[in-house]
Amino acid sequence: MKKLVLLRHGQSQWNLENRFTGWYDVDLSEQGRTEAAGAGQLMRAAGIRFDAAFTSVLKRAIRTLWMSLDEMDQMYVPITNSWRLNERHYGALTGLNKAETAKKYGDDQVHVWRRSFSTPPPALSEEDERHPRHDQRYRNLRPDQLPGTESLETTLQRVLPYWESDMVPVVNESENVLVAAHGNSLRALVKHLRGLDDEAIIGVEIPTGDPLVFELDDTLAVTDSYYLRERV
Amino acid sequence: MKKLVLLRHGQSQWNLENRFTGWYDVDLSEQGRTEAAGAGQLMRAAGIRFDAAFTSVLKRAIRTLWMSLDEMDQMYVPITNSWRLNERHYGALTGLNKAETAKKYGDDQVHVWRRSFSTPPPALSEEDERHPRHDQRYRNLRPDQLPGTESLETTLQRVLPYWESDMVPVVNESENVLVAAHGNSLRALVKHLRGLDDEAIIGVEIPTGDPLVFELDDTLAVTDSYYLRERV
Repeated sequence: MKKLVLLRHGQSQWNLENRFTGWYDVDLSEQGRTEAAGAGQLMRAAGIRFDAAFTSVLKRAIRTLWMSLDEMDQMYVPITNSWRLNERHYGALTGLNKAETAKKYGDDQVHVWRRSFSTPPPALSEEDERHPRHDQRYRNLRPDQLPGTESLETTLQRVLPYWESDMVPVVNESENVLVAAHGNSLRALVKHLRGLDDEAIIGVEIPTGDPLVFELDDTLAVTDSYYLRERV
Repeated sequence: MKKLVLLRHGQSQWNLENRFTGWYDVDLSEQGRTEAAGAGQLMRAAGIRFDAAFTSVLKRAIRTLWMSLDEMDQMYVPITNSWRLNERHYGALTGLNKAETAKKYGDDQVHVWRRSFSTPPPALSEEDERHPRHDQRYRNLRPDQLPGTESLETTLQRVLPYWESDMVPVVNESENVLVAAHGNSLRALVKHLRGLDDEAIIGVEIPTGDPLVFELDDTLAVTDSYYLRERV
């Protein structure tokens, strides 16, 4: 039986400051680092040996992966980074304080931007310095791949092709694979693995720092799933 | 002009204890961590942006890479790990105290094991728990790829094919590439890049924690090389 383990990064400095983050490359807070190490300790206690790991190109997820592999004494596990596992891009809300944004646009509007399936926040213009075209790490991508904003729907649409093209082959040839990523990129994987519809995935909230284990058979059908904290 | 930067990891716990290390997966000491961060600060001050990085499957090199990328705020750089960049395997000397080994075998014998080009230390038997066949991270290698001991010569013989097959294509398509590795695996690259003979490479001692920069033209011929500490 294979294991695919999904790990959502813990608290970042902007979670702490109540700001919209998205693709902004903010670091983990001290609490987020404690969560990352704790996740590694849970996986070590469960005795899971990983063959491969995936993460985004954002340091809060990468550091979560590095710290948990360090705790497991498995720093040698090969890591693949992809922008396709990044958090949902929060468009023009990036960097804004959530409470101030609610005051300015109203609670109802902010609720739609945060919780609807297909409505994205207002887009960043290409001239805005927060637009990914100004970031070196995306310089090899085509302009049409670089979002100025994203809904949950468009986030899923760039995660799932990567699952099929790059992750499935590795999962197929591995026993255990770890994915350290973000609330919404992990939702894309959970929606696919559990066969949830668009409405159902909105209600799924993956806790931070608690490895979510999917046991898969050789056809990658899910035979069991559980949070590791409940089992160790 | 491309840059290929070679970074030798700093002090490990066993350097501190004066023990032969080789493929044993000992961690950096506090001083070694300071050296890794310092190397990152040098590369940050030089303004080098990396497109790719290579390292071994040993944590003293991996941690050196992670810490230096962190200092440069380039944690997103894709990393490739390979056992072919490991330190020379020290055979039956692995774990032994260097002073005690000199007392037991004589200074001259130990000098030959440490400094000759082609004489390896005594080999580990396959039953010895220090033999790499007992280590999970090498489970996908063929038995004939797993050394019970290595000379500098046999180390070069497993590094150089990897340079040709896996590193050259990445260097060709990149502007800047970082390699964080070990004294002897880096010697293999220096011997090749500088066209040194077997005698000359024995005399080359790469300092720890000081990035060695090779500037390369499009044919990967060396146009300049220097230690970064002298330039920043």
